[in-house]
Amino acid sequence: MAFFWSMHGNLVILCPIHNRLIMHNLSEYLSMIEQQIKDLEYPAEPVGLYAPIRYVLDGGGKRIRPVLALAACEALGADPLKAINQALGVEMFHNFTLLHDDVMDHADMRRGRPTVHVKWDERTAILSGDAMLTLSSMLMARECPLQFYPRVMKLTQQTAMEVYEGQQYDMDFEDRNDVTVDDYLCMIRLKTAVLLGCACALGVIMAGGEQQHADAMYAYGERLGLAFQLRDDYLDTYGDPIVFGKEIGGDILNDKKTWLSIMALSEDTSGVMAEELSRPSEPTEKIERVRAVYDRLQLPLRCQQLIDSYVDAAVAMLEKVPMTPAARNFFVRLAEESRSRSH
Amino acid sequence: MAFFWSMHGNLVILCPIHNRLIMHNLSEYLSMIEQQIKDLEYPAEPVGLYAPIRYVLDGGGKRIRPVLALAACEALGADPLKAINQALGVEMFHNFTLLHDDVMDHADMRRGRPTVHVKWDERTAILSGDAMLTLSSMLMARECPLQFYPRVMKLTQQTAMEVYEGQQYDMDFEDRNDVTVDDYLCMIRLKTAVLLGCACALGVIMAGGEQQHADAMYAYGERLGLAFQLRDDYLDTYGDPIVFGKEIGGDILNDKKTWLSIMALSEDTSGVMAEELSRPSEPTEKIERVRAVYDRLQLPLRCQQLIDSYVDAAVAMLEKVPMTPAARNFFVRLAEESRSRSH
Repeated sequence: MAFFWSMHGNLVILCPIHNRLIMHNLSEYLSMIEQQIKDLEYPAEPVGLYAPIRYVLDGGGKRIRPVLALAACEALGADPLKAINQALGVEMFHNFTLLHDDVMDHADMRRGRPTVHVKWDERTAILSGDAMLTLSSMLMARECPLQFYPRVMKLTQQTAMEVYEGQQYDMDFEDRNDVTVDDYLCMIRLKTAVLLGCACALGVIMAGGEQQHADAMYAYGERLGLAFQLRDDYLDTYGDPIVFGKEIGGDILNDKKTWLSIMALSEDTSGVMAEELSRPSEPTEKIERVRAVYDRLQLPLRCQQLIDSYVDAAVAMLEKVPMTPAARNFFVRLAEESRSRSH
Repeated sequence: MAFFWSMHGNLVILCPIHNRLIMHNLSEYLSMIEQQIKDLEYPAEPVGLYAPIRYVLDGGGKRIRPVLALAACEALGADPLKAINQALGVEMFHNFTLLHDDVMDHADMRRGRPTVHVKWDERTAILSGDAMLTLSSMLMARECPLQFYPRVMKLTQQTAMEVYEGQQYDMDFEDRNDVTVDDYLCMIRLKTAVLLGCACALGVIMAGGEQQHADAMYAYGERLGLAFQLRDDYLDTYGDPIVFGKEIGGDILNDKKTWLSIMALSEDTSGVMAEELSRPSEPTEKIERVRAVYDRLQLPLRCQQLIDSYVDAAVAMLEKVPMTPAARNFFVRLAEESRSRSH
């Protein structure tokens, strides 16, 4: 068994089979994940249940959650494929939430393709989503050593409940005018960030890592998730539609509660924000007027500062986990990219 | 430790703590279950997520599935409360399927009360149902000894997938004219019967019983479930609306594929069945005409004979499981009641 002392004085033990100081890179993880998703076997019948599941899973996406699970596993010195089933389980769960969210939000398009309830129908989307949630549990359990099994299940069940709570708060916010920035940050933590944290922790658990290291990597993923969602909100108003891949200003047109709109409503003394929320107006003009308020309050800059603080907090968590410089570098780069990503 | 030889030559060992030859009776099991459902604790917030779950769970129902789990556990010589969490997990899962089925079927009423998507809205029903599925998994895991954990999870996950498949086939049948009796029996086995089998097997597993006895009790529950569903179909056409608790003839009016309608369509040479399926008609007359076809083909009698054969097959399975005469008697009575129940 090989080992060395990390730059932070932690003893790093390398897996005897794996035994490498370098990590796989992002595109290698993505290849593993795409291949495994392609290889997932579903029963042939009933077609109406399984075809939509394959359709959703094959629809692409960033695959950030399974990447985090594999990389965390490898960073702790194990073969990343030791966490592949749990990585797929997290991706299956994430896609299940998108599928049901699209039904709840009556969204017609996802990743450039018709959503399941449009391509098939609503009851197909509900039932296939239910099956994806159970398939996610099955993947979590697949080839999971007994000593890790209860931790894996408990973490994923707890995370699932938090994600539902986040979705419920998000829906509740639509009808509320008293949503604070803290409420909003709590909501996106539940709806988005905890699943990234969970993915990281699963990688550590499957590598046989200690609970304190699983906790630290969870905290890394959670902070990354917060930065990620805030950057998403930012790009929805300030992104380049070509690069971002969707039209800009959707959140403004839908009067969606975001960090930007909540801050603007609480700080804007001109009354423009309150006025825009209470009346229908021509789309281009509405986007322009609201963006002018954001700009006047320096919200783009302040939003970016908040994103930066979460990225910094994520990176700081890595100090608590013994890993090779290559592994640390991988997670630092991932965090740095979420600071400035434009799509 | 007490033991005795059963009438079938099996050695019956009584749990040292429990150590009783008599079983609890049905109403005692029901009290335990209702009390535990009442004691389930949910987070206070967000209300929109948890209030519908309590509403659904508090809505009553026969509680046949959790009763089976507790009774099977006690029949194998353990304290029935050893299986209480898994019993609740099965009941939670069952209620989740009813909640989502009601959305899919646009059903307005359930157990004499408005359904969740009517009382709240559709997206609340979808999200609360998702949470119930995860809560069901959490209950399965709660206080489950590590040595039983993978078996409990695998059985419940597999059963869940089968239930979804059954629901999908049921929906597919609406648009098909070539559904055979075998197709139908396969569908109700998946949609209804396997969950009763699962409940029985969970009781055996939690009692520390052997796999072969879990399998035999699963088979008992599955056959009971088939008898149960066929009796349900029978009562929908031939029941007493006051006793049955809902209007008679709903299946006929909705052109629903049931054992009765499939048999009638395949055997009726008068053309009345085919005609009734292809045209709208006055409700009372339609029910009368279709029922006349059923009667002419002696379908009520033949349906009852099929129910009887499943009840007999269920009872026969009990021979394979070592249990006290009191325990055996409990399961025999449950099966006998499903032969002739009128509500």
